[in-house]
Amino acid sequence: MVKKNIAILGSTGSVGTQTLEVARHDHNLNIVGLTTNTNIDLLEKQIIEFEPELVCVMNEQRALELSQRLAEKSIHVEVVSGLEGLIEVATLDNAHLVVTAVIGMIGLVPTVEAIKKGKHIALANKETLVAGGDIVMKLANAYNIPILPIDSEHSAIFQCLQGNKREEVSRYILTASGGPFRDFTYEQLQKVTVQDALKHPNWEMGSKITIDSATLMNKGLEVIEGKHLFNTSYDKIDVVVHRESIIHSMVEYRDGSTMAQLGYADMKVPIAYAIYYPNRQKANHAEKLDFCKLKSLTFEEPKRSLFPCLDLGYSALKTGGTMPAVLNAANEIAVESFLNKKISFLQIPKLIAKVMEKHTCISEPTLDEILYYDNWAREYSRKKVKESGTSHL
Amino acid sequence: MVKKNIAILGSTGSVGTQTLEVARHDHNLNIVGLTTNTNIDLLEKQIIEFEPELVCVMNEQRALELSQRLAEKSIHVEVVSGLEGLIEVATLDNAHLVVTAVIGMIGLVPTVEAIKKGKHIALANKETLVAGGDIVMKLANAYNIPILPIDSEHSAIFQCLQGNKREEVSRYILTASGGPFRDFTYEQLQKVTVQDALKHPNWEMGSKITIDSATLMNKGLEVIEGKHLFNTSYDKIDVVVHRESIIHSMVEYRDGSTMAQLGYADMKVPIAYAIYYPNRQKANHAEKLDFCKLKSLTFEEPKRSLFPCLDLGYSALKTGGTMPAVLNAANEIAVESFLNKKISFLQIPKLIAKVMEKHTCISEPTLDEILYYDNWAREYSRKKVKESGTSHL
Repeated sequence: MVKKNIAILGSTGSVGTQTLEVARHDHNLNIVGLTTNTNIDLLEKQIIEFEPELVCVMNEQRALELSQRLAEKSIHVEVVSGLEGLIEVATLDNAHLVVTAVIGMIGLVPTVEAIKKGKHIALANKETLVAGGDIVMKLANAYNIPILPIDSEHSAIFQCLQGNKREEVSRYILTASGGPFRDFTYEQLQKVTVQDALKHPNWEMGSKITIDSATLMNKGLEVIEGKHLFNTSYDKIDVVVHRESIIHSMVEYRDGSTMAQLGYADMKVPIAYAIYYPNRQKANHAEKLDFCKLKSLTFEEPKRSLFPCLDLGYSALKTGGTMPAVLNAANEIAVESFLNKKISFLQIPKLIAKVMEKHTCISEPTLDEILYYDNWAREYSRKKVKESGTSHL
Repeated sequence: MVKKNIAILGSTGSVGTQTLEVARHDHNLNIVGLTTNTNIDLLEKQIIEFEPELVCVMNEQRALELSQRLAEKSIHVEVVSGLEGLIEVATLDNAHLVVTAVIGMIGLVPTVEAIKKGKHIALANKETLVAGGDIVMKLANAYNIPILPIDSEHSAIFQCLQGNKREEVSRYILTASGGPFRDFTYEQLQKVTVQDALKHPNWEMGSKITIDSATLMNKGLEVIEGKHLFNTSYDKIDVVVHRESIIHSMVEYRDGSTMAQLGYADMKVPIAYAIYYPNRQKANHAEKLDFCKLKSLTFEEPKRSLFPCLDLGYSALKTGGTMPAVLNAANEIAVESFLNKKISFLQIPKLIAKVMEKHTCISEPTLDEILYYDNWAREYSRKKVKESGTSHL
């Protein structure tokens, strides 16, 4: 096998560290770039182990601190900082593949720049497609660059599409765990605390994505991403609640066949699929499904009225233009405000809906317009949170 | 789309009539040959509707009768008979695809001859691969002919392999309904009647295959077919009982992903997949899966000690050579004897095991040797049934 040079944007986060875990077991994977926001302790360890040529620390102060530490230990690696630094890592000359695992809108511009340099993209950053899907996919097509999804649902769909024609797809079926409150009544949801919401039934993740999972906004965002990744329309994407999270998603074809991808929850599987695509590398870490232990896989309708974030996602996708970016920005502020106990759980969708209502959508926006309205939505959301006090919006 | 000329061996049976049902809805599918054992009433209707150029009636007397009927109605189609006639249909000059849907060993030689003429094969005849798998697959490889499985389990696996590499497969997982007696105790199995055994929980089929489904021999035979179709070994094929028969089978890959093909039980779906491969034709007949109605998919271990036919299948495959042909022949006589109330349900595996024990396996047999030992196994099985009286073997 030929060596593959990989740059990881966001190497100290959950997807980043798991990508390095995959690389650790294959000397043909060569890490050329790493980045972190502020976690220079972990980044330093990663530098020592993987010997990249360039690293970026978003925070300038922390970047300087890391430089000094490395100098003291006579470790030679270039340290850059800020968005420009992030773009430098994303466009590293000898990188073949860029793993975009940063969180937030910061991932959008470096991904665009990486595509322009002909890098293949393994994408874990939601905002890139939610906010900039039209631009990014158009660019990827123009440069003939594959966008390889890392998200387990989209990886499942991507796998179910192999050896098939996209025009023969009749439906994309995203599975959802349903989150920790899938059995709650409206009355119970009124009393949900931050602590309750941070307990995911099937796995541990960062707090933002855990809340998104509890509100079903994660599925709303995935519907938008799926539209772009698979060049389809909102009415061809369905969501079904599947508590066991064993079927990661499915594709239904026009001949009556449905293809599904199954496995235990392990992000390393979709990460490795994106890295090695179209091959499947032997993974000793991957636990094989024991169907007899599984016993049963269940399915049910999502509770759309109790979890309106899912339909807000569909609605933003249907409107298109800048609306998905606004949805995403409002959701980020709503989740942040919930985590800071400024709004209640049920106020999350209310806040987002208010911001979406206020926004006058721009169709076919430029990257700058997307960034502008992203910023507007954040400001407006914060203002609404402030106005609301703690009891209502 | 280019016209596809199809010859159907066994057009009056279940798979045959469903193949014609698919052809009925697509004027690009052109039926050039049809065959039946004795059902000339249905064959006559099929001739009038599909206007083939050649038909075969295995029974010579019935063939003559059909010829006369057609002459009286001034319908011009050549009528042939017997194995030679069947081979004539299988090797029709302008046929692109031969659907082998006859029942029994009679399917083996025509399939071999069709491959030698470069015809693509859509295979529903178990015996072709169970008894002659080594010869047939070697020949198909030499002539670079695809063998397209029609059986829903093997079609599912074939679909799960698309876009993937066979050397990356870690396990083939055949699903089994478990048959009508999946919840029976040994005591209950002792009292099983022919009538009980002919009730399949999930669908209606011919009596032979329904009994095979009740004994789990159908899964034993499918394990052998799977070995040949997918060029693998017995220890890479697993069987899991899945009562709902929605997941038709699965392929597990070395990276930890498992791909599955799902759908309601409808033979027209795998038939159409084999006919249109690698495309998927829009099928208005195909009912879309309603996951919320499904509610739950279950899995459990097959009960190997209560249903020893499954392990007899593995054992014959492991031994190889003429043993699978002997297993198959003994099973046919055992099922026939059970249906004629000459042996009990639990005597079916006992009879087969006795015949297998008696057989001295020939490795790398010729086609003639396979046919010879097939015949030997039938004779010996009949003799054992006679000797046994009605109470024990």
